[in-house]
Amino acid sequence: VLTNNKIKLINSLKVKKNRESHGLFVAEGDKVVQEFMDSDLVVESLYTTNSTAFPEALKVSEKELARISNLKTANSVLALVRIPDSSFKLEKLNNKITIVLDNIKDPGNLGTIIRIADWFSIDTILCSEETVDVFNPKVIQSTMGSLARVRIHYEDLRSILNKFSVPIYGAVLDGNSIYKQTKLPEAAIVFGNESTGISSEILNLIDHKITIPRFGGAESLNVGVSAGIICSELIGKPF
Amino acid sequence: VLTNNKIKLINSLKVKKNRESHGLFVAEGDKVVQEFMDSDLVVESLYTTNSTAFPEALKVSEKELARISNLKTANSVLALVRIPDSSFKLEKLNNKITIVLDNIKDPGNLGTIIRIADWFSIDTILCSEETVDVFNPKVIQSTMGSLARVRIHYEDLRSILNKFSVPIYGAVLDGNSIYKQTKLPEAAIVFGNESTGISSEILNLIDHKITIPRFGGAESLNVGVSAGIICSELIGKPF
Repeated sequence: VLTNNKIKLINSLKVKKNRESHGLFVAEGDKVVQEFMDSDLVVESLYTTNSTAFPEALKVSEKELARISNLKTANSVLALVRIPDSSFKLEKLNNKITIVLDNIKDPGNLGTIIRIADWFSIDTILCSEETVDVFNPKVIQSTMGSLARVRIHYEDLRSILNKFSVPIYGAVLDGNSIYKQTKLPEAAIVFGNESTGISSEILNLIDHKITIPRFGGAESLNVGVSAGIICSELIGKPF
Repeated sequence: VLTNNKIKLINSLKVKKNRESHGLFVAEGDKVVQEFMDSDLVVESLYTTNSTAFPEALKVSEKELARISNLKTANSVLALVRIPDSSFKLEKLNNKITIVLDNIKDPGNLGTIIRIADWFSIDTILCSEETVDVFNPKVIQSTMGSLARVRIHYEDLRSILNKFSVPIYGAVLDGNSIYKQTKLPEAAIVFGNESTGISSEILNLIDHKITIPRFGGAESLNVGVSAGIICSELIGKPF
């Protein structure tokens, strides 16, 4: 059965410092939970109202699931997943594309960018320490399971970007058109905060400023959309 | 002063049928409100805690603004804006790109797509009748003011797509690569529901199925990201 202590533990994982001290985060929903089960991450506990779909899970009532769920309407399954090791090695950058996030605040945006990384086969995202925590329940749900394949590292961006040997690209509003860019074999691509963009201390470390040309009246694009367009242009297109 | 009747009216606009009967919607925040003031939409009333920035607005206290705001933390200004005329004419489709949305449910996704349309200078979006209401406060806030330049029409998609003379493209998971597509001078591009994609009755009306090639493990991209990438590839790029 789902004890009161367990309910208390699970609910405490809404807060980052508790996730860190327990080394656990919460994932919900058939698809998201299944992706973690199929990955090399460790699913520690499983709770479900649907034993047919998840025979290995602890059967709970809908009422019990609602008590531990972060969702307005609880899905049929909830998992406690172990936070993976996040030590970052500079060699991970070689011969590929890495996404770098400077102070992304919105959980949905981080989740969307993880999904984009997964779509374009980018397996590493480096985040500034102020970026929203990836194990925040809202991020987990918006990744749709892609977190099972993409590793996120939180680092002091200024000191680590200084050590990069791959070229550093940054998405800004006044750079060179992405449509004139050739496909990138290896690079780090930096995306900045939703309101303020890339911070000035990081901007200094960027080798190539790039921009999605604007045709209409909008002042900016959502950062997830920008990341998608830039990944498509610099990685996806086959020519 | 802000009367109780006025507060009641403004709060009633959270619900679609009240927005329709009053012909009004609520916009909040400096940038969003300013964009509507600079547009050809009619701002009926303005309430602000900051008379310096909005001298023409009715000055209210922070407490009063919180009582009419839809936001967790009220911004400094709130406007009542008249819902613009939304009659749609087929001639609007000629010589340009139109976005068609089949049953988009998430307000943030609709807002993001309106911002993308504005960025790529698309001035018309056609929505199925089940698509989330554009004057929903969450949509208004996520458009960042782009709704001042993009017109949204709700139509019975099946009957109206049958009358289209421009080619109809649809974003699906098993179509032709967008990277092999030439730039489009005129077209309607259909995007489907977040979970179920384009409905089968609309799929039958599509002339060209297109797909963003997948390189990694994600099963799908967020519909706003897909719309951004497809608009960039088919409209934005200059070759």
